[in-house]
Amino acid sequence: METDKKQYILTAQCKSVIGTVDAVTHFLFEQQCYINELQSFDDSITGQFFIRAAFTMTGTDETGIEALRDAFAARAEHFGMQWEVADATAPTRLLVLVSKFDHCLNDLLYRYRTGDLNIEIPAIISNHPDLAHLAESHKIPYFHLPVNKENRPEQEARIRDLFQITQSDLMILARYMQVLSSGMCEEFSGRAINIHHSLLPGFKGARPYHQAFDKGVKLVGATAHFVTSDLDEGPIIAQGLETVDHTHTPEKLIAKGRDIESLTLARAIRAYSQRRVFMHGSKTVVFPEG
Amino acid sequence: METDKKQYILTAQCKSVIGTVDAVTHFLFEQQCYINELQSFDDSITGQFFIRAAFTMTGTDETGIEALRDAFAARAEHFGMQWEVADATAPTRLLVLVSKFDHCLNDLLYRYRTGDLNIEIPAIISNHPDLAHLAESHKIPYFHLPVNKENRPEQEARIRDLFQITQSDLMILARYMQVLSSGMCEEFSGRAINIHHSLLPGFKGARPYHQAFDKGVKLVGATAHFVTSDLDEGPIIAQGLETVDHTHTPEKLIAKGRDIESLTLARAIRAYSQRRVFMHGSKTVVFPEG
Amino acid sequence: METDKKQYILTAQCKSVIGTVDAVTHFLFEQQCYINELQSFDDSITGQFFIRAAFTMTGTDETGIEALRDAFAARAEHFGMQWEVADATAPTRLLVLVSKFDHCLNDLLYRYRTGDLNIEIPAIISNHPDLAHLAESHKIPYFHLPVNKENRPEQEARIRDLFQITQSDLMILARYMQVLSSGMCEEFSGRAINIHHSLLPGFKGARPYHQAFDKGVKLVGATAHFVTSDLDEGPIIAQGLETVDHTHTPEKLIAKGRDIESLTLARAIRAYSQRRVFMHGSKTVVFPEG
Amino acid sequence: METDKKQYILTAQCKSVIGTVDAVTHFLFEQQCYINELQSFDDSITGQFFIRAAFTMTGTDETGIEALRDAFAARAEHFGMQWEVADATAPTRLLVLVSKFDHCLNDLLYRYRTGDLNIEIPAIISNHPDLAHLAESHKIPYFHLPVNKENRPEQEARIRDLFQITQSDLMILARYMQVLSSGMCEEFSGRAINIHHSLLPGFKGARPYHQAFDKGVKLVGATAHFVTSDLDEGPIIAQGLETVDHTHTPEKLIAKGRDIESLTLARAIRAYSQRRVFMHGSKTVVFPEG
Repeated sequence: METDKKQYILTAQCKSVIGTVDAVTHFLFEQQCYINELQSFDDSITGQFFIRAAFTMTGTDETGIEALRDAFAARAEHFGMQWEVADATAPTRLLVLVSKFDHCLNDLLYRYRTGDLNIEIPAIISNHPDLAHLAESHKIPYFHLPVNKENRPEQEARIRDLFQITQSDLMILARYMQVLSSGMCEEFSGRAINIHHSLLPGFKGARPYHQAFDKGVKLVGATAHFVTSDLDEGPIIAQGLETVDHTHTPEKLIAKGRDIESLTLARAIRAYSQRRVFMHGSKTVVFPEG
Repeated sequence: METDKKQYILTAQCKSVIGTVDAVTHFLFEQQCYINELQSFDDSITGQFFIRAAFTMTGTDETGIEALRDAFAARAEHFGMQWEVADATAPTRLLVLVSKFDHCLNDLLYRYRTGDLNIEIPAIISNHPDLAHLAESHKIPYFHLPVNKENRPEQEARIRDLFQITQSDLMILARYMQVLSSGMCEEFSGRAINIHHSLLPGFKGARPYHQAFDKGVKLVGATAHFVTSDLDEGPIIAQGLETVDHTHTPEKLIAKGRDIESLTLARAIRAYSQRRVFMHGSKTVVFPEG
Repeated sequence: METDKKQYILTAQCKSVIGTVDAVTHFLFEQQCYINELQSFDDSITGQFFIRAAFTMTGTDETGIEALRDAFAARAEHFGMQWEVADATAPTRLLVLVSKFDHCLNDLLYRYRTGDLNIEIPAIISNHPDLAHLAESHKIPYFHLPVNKENRPEQEARIRDLFQITQSDLMILARYMQVLSSGMCEEFSGRAINIHHSLLPGFKGARPYHQAFDKGVKLVGATAHFVTSDLDEGPIIAQGLETVDHTHTPEKLIAKGRDIESLTLARAIRAYSQRRVFMHGSKTVVFPEG
Repeated sequence: METDKKQYILTAQCKSVIGTVDAVTHFLFEQQCYINELQSFDDSITGQFFIRAAFTMTGTDETGIEALRDAFAARAEHFGMQWEVADATAPTRLLVLVSKFDHCLNDLLYRYRTGDLNIEIPAIISNHPDLAHLAESHKIPYFHLPVNKENRPEQEARIRDLFQITQSDLMILARYMQVLSSGMCEEFSGRAINIHHSLLPGFKGARPYHQAFDKGVKLVGATAHFVTSDLDEGPIIAQGLETVDHTHTPEKLIAKGRDIESLTLARAIRAYSQRRVFMHGSKTVVFPEG
C-alpha cells in the first residue's frame, strides 16, 4: 500500500521472550500504522531478539509521532528493549574524517550530491590540508586538524566538539589513517565506522595490501566496521572483495582496492542510514536491504 | 529462544491492507507461539502483501497444530489470504525428471543423502535409461518413460500418476530436455521447477551455450524458474553465473555451466523447501535465507 | 627484469599458421628487446591467431622504435598481419559523449585525475548542457551539440571533426542515450565503446532496467561493447553484474546499476588502453590484465 | 590451427634475462611445433621468469617428443631453467587423502568419472573406514591407514609407498584433517595440495568456521594451497568465497562452505593438471585458463 504519508522505522532489541514481535506489531496496528517492511532475527545462541519495522502513519489522529513514541515507551520498558523510532526520510548526518587518500571521500561526495545515499555531510575533518578543495567544491566546511603524539587529546576534543556542533549522527573514518584514543572509541561506540583495506580479521594494522602481496593471496578485500578500542577488531558491518593474481604488485593491489573500499563503505553507510544495522556484542546484525 | 518443540512455518499473501501483519503475528502470540524468524514484503506497485513467519508452539495446550490451523482459517478468510502452515522439519518430496545429463541429479542426490537439502526423492523419471544406475545406487525407483510426439499424453499421464502416488510436493526438471504440454504446465503451476542453462530471458530455447558462444558474452549463467506453458518464461526463482572469455568454446561453456546449474537449482530448491518462495504473477518473491 | 627504458606493446593478428609466434618473439629478440609480458591466443574455430607482447628496448642502438617498426613491417606482411607497436606509457585519448546522466562521466573523471586509468580526455560532448560544470571543474572543453532528426548529419560531422582535431584514439558513449548513424558507426568501428545498462544480449534497447523489473530477474548487469550499426549488438568487451531481488523497483535497479555501469566501462577502457582488446568479427579477444 | 596431432605443454622458469622467451619459442619453431597457447610472466620484484607454451608437433620427423626434450635440454641449461615438457592429454594421477568428510572426495569422483577433470585416482587413503563405500563404488582401492602419535612415521611411510607404487603425480588432502610431518611435507613439496576451509591467512588451524562465526565476518571462503611444513602457510593456488550474515550459525557456515571447498579444490587441481601452476618461493604463479 503506497501512501504519501511519512515513513518511520522502528528498531528494537531485547532478550528473546515470547511476545516481543507482538509488542511491536500489535502496537503499530493499534496505532493504525501500516507496516511496509518487517524483519526479525532471533539469535538462538545468545538469546537476543532484533526487530525492524518500516511503517507509515495512516491514522487521522494528529498527535503524531511523538505521541506514538511515548505510547511505545511503556511497552518497550516491559521487555527491557533498546529501541528507536526514526524518521525514515531524514538524512543521516556524517562527520567525515580523512587523511590524504581521496577515493572514499570522492565516492561519498558523489553519492551525497546525487542523493544515492540519504546523507548530509556537515563537515569534513582531516589531519592534512590536501583534500580541502574537494570539500570546498561541495561547499562543505573543511577542518584541518593536524595531530601528533602531543596534541592528540586536544585534537580529539575538537573532533568531539565538531560532532556535537554539527549535530552529526555518525562519524566516518574514510581512510583516516589515524588511530583514535580508547576514550574516543568508547564514547563513539556504535556511532563511528571505519573502512579497513583488507578482509578482516586477515591483515590487520598497517599496509594490508603489502601484507596481502607478501602472502600471495588470490583475493583482496575491504571491511567496514564499527570503531572500537581494539584496532581493526570492531563489529564488521560489510565486506567486499576482488580477485587478484601473481601479476598484482602492491601498487596494483592498492589501485584495485580503491573501488572495493569505496563500495564497501557506501554499502555500510546505506545499511546504517536505513536503520538496518544493530550492534550485538563484537558482531552486528544487518538486515538485508528491501 | 531455542526449544526442542516443533517448528512450523506460516506463509501467506493477500491484498495490502492495514492489519495484515497483525493478523498473523498477534494470532501467533495469542496461540502462545514463539516467532523465530519473520519477514514481510509489501509490493508497492501491485499492492500485494507477503509474509513468512517461522514459529514454535510453546503452549501446553495439546490440541496442537491442527487446532491452530482451524483457528487461523477464519482470520485469513477475512483478509482473503492464500496461506499455509507447514511443518518446518518435514522434507520436501521431489519427483525428479531427467534426461541423459547427470550433473544436476548427481548434485541433488548428494545433497539428499547428506541432508544438506531437507528433501526426499521418492522417484526419478527419465525419457532415457542412462541414469538408472544413479537411482539404483540410492535405492530410488527409476521410471524409464520414453516420450515422442505420439505418446506424450500417455507419458504425461504416467508422470502425473507418479507425482500423486509418491505424494510428491514438487516436480524438478533437472535438465529434462523435454517441453511439457500446456495442460501439464498449468496443472503443476507453482509446483514444478526447471533449471535452464542461461541467464534468462537471454538465450531461451535450445542450445543456450552455443547461443552464448556465438554472441561472445563474458558471463554465462543458469536460471531456476517455475515451469509455465510459455517456454523458459516462468517466474524466476534463482540465477547464478560465471565469468568466461574468448577461450571458451561451446564445449568449455557447457563444462563450466554444470557447476552453476547444479548450484542454482539447489539454491532454488532450498528456498522452496524452506517456504521462502511465493509466486506473484510472472515473478517471484523469495525471502532471503535466515 | 626491470629497466628505466621505455615500454612498448606489440599487438598483431593474422591467420593461424606455423611461425606466427616466432615471427614476433624472435624478431624482438633480434632487436635486443626484452619481453615483459606475452600472451597468444589461437582461435581453433575461426583459425585466427592473436598475440600481445609488452617489451622494453634494451639495445644501445639509437635508431629507436621507428626503425623497429620498419623492420617488423616486412615480417608482418609475410603473414598478412594486422599489427601495431604502441608506446605503453602514452595515455589513450578519449572523446567522451554524454547526455544527462553523470555517473559514468564522474567515474571516468576521477580515474583520469588520479591516474587510475592512463587516459586523457581532450573534450566532452553532450546533447544537453547539464554536465558542463563537471567538464569545467576539470578544465576540459565541453561541447553542447543538441541533436534531433533534422540536424543529425551536421551534429555527427561536428563530433567527427572534434575527434580528429583533438587527436582522440577512442570515442566513449558514457550513457550518451543517442543512436549514432550507420555511417558513423562504421567509420568508428573498433574505435567507439558504448556502455549499455543490461547483460546483453538480454534487454536490448530502451529502458533495460524496466525490462529487467518486468521479467523479475535476480541479476542485473552492464555491458561495455564496441559500437556497431546493429543497436546493442556490437562485440562485447566487458560485463559486470549485481544480484537483486523482489524488493527492487525500477528506480532501485537504476540506482544499483550506476556502480556496475561505471566499473564495467572503466574495465573496458583499461583493457583497451593497455592494448588487450582485439576485435574479431562480432566478438572480441580480451587478454587478461597482467 | 587445429590438428589431430598430440598436444604437449612446455613449462619453464629461470632468472629474467634477455632471450628467455626466444629460447622457448624459437626452439619450438625450429622443431616445427605449432604453439596453440602461450603465456609468460616476468616477476619484476624477484627477477624471475615463467613461461608456459602449449604446442602441437606438426613435423614429419618421427623421432618424436623424446628427441625434442633432448634438444631442448641444452638450451634450457644455458639459462639455468627448471623445465618440463608434458603430454597435455595424459591425466594427472591423484593420490587422495581423506578423513570422514566426503564432500570434496564426492566432488572429485564426479569430475573424475565425467572427465570434467583430466585425472586418474589410483588410490584413496583415509585414517578412517567411513568413506570406503565411495571408493568401492568407483572401483578405486581404499586404504584405511589409522594414524596416531605413535605410528605416524609408519603410516606416512605407507602413504609414501602408495604414492610411488601408484605412480601418482600429486597428493590431494581433501579435508584429510591430519597434519603431515615436516619431513613428509618437504619430500612432497610442490606435489601435495591441501584444501583449507578459510580465506587464508585468516583463520588458520582448527575449526575455522567457528573462528569465522566468532568474528562475525560477512564472507567465508576456502583456500587450496601447496602443503608445507608451516601449517596452512603454503603457497596459495586458488581461493573461493561466499557471502554470509548474522543468521549463519557455525553449522550453517560449515554447510555453506562445502560447495566452496569442493569448487576451489577442483579449480586448483584443474590448473595444476593443465600445468598452469608454478611454485615461486612462498607464492604461486597461476596462468589463467585458456
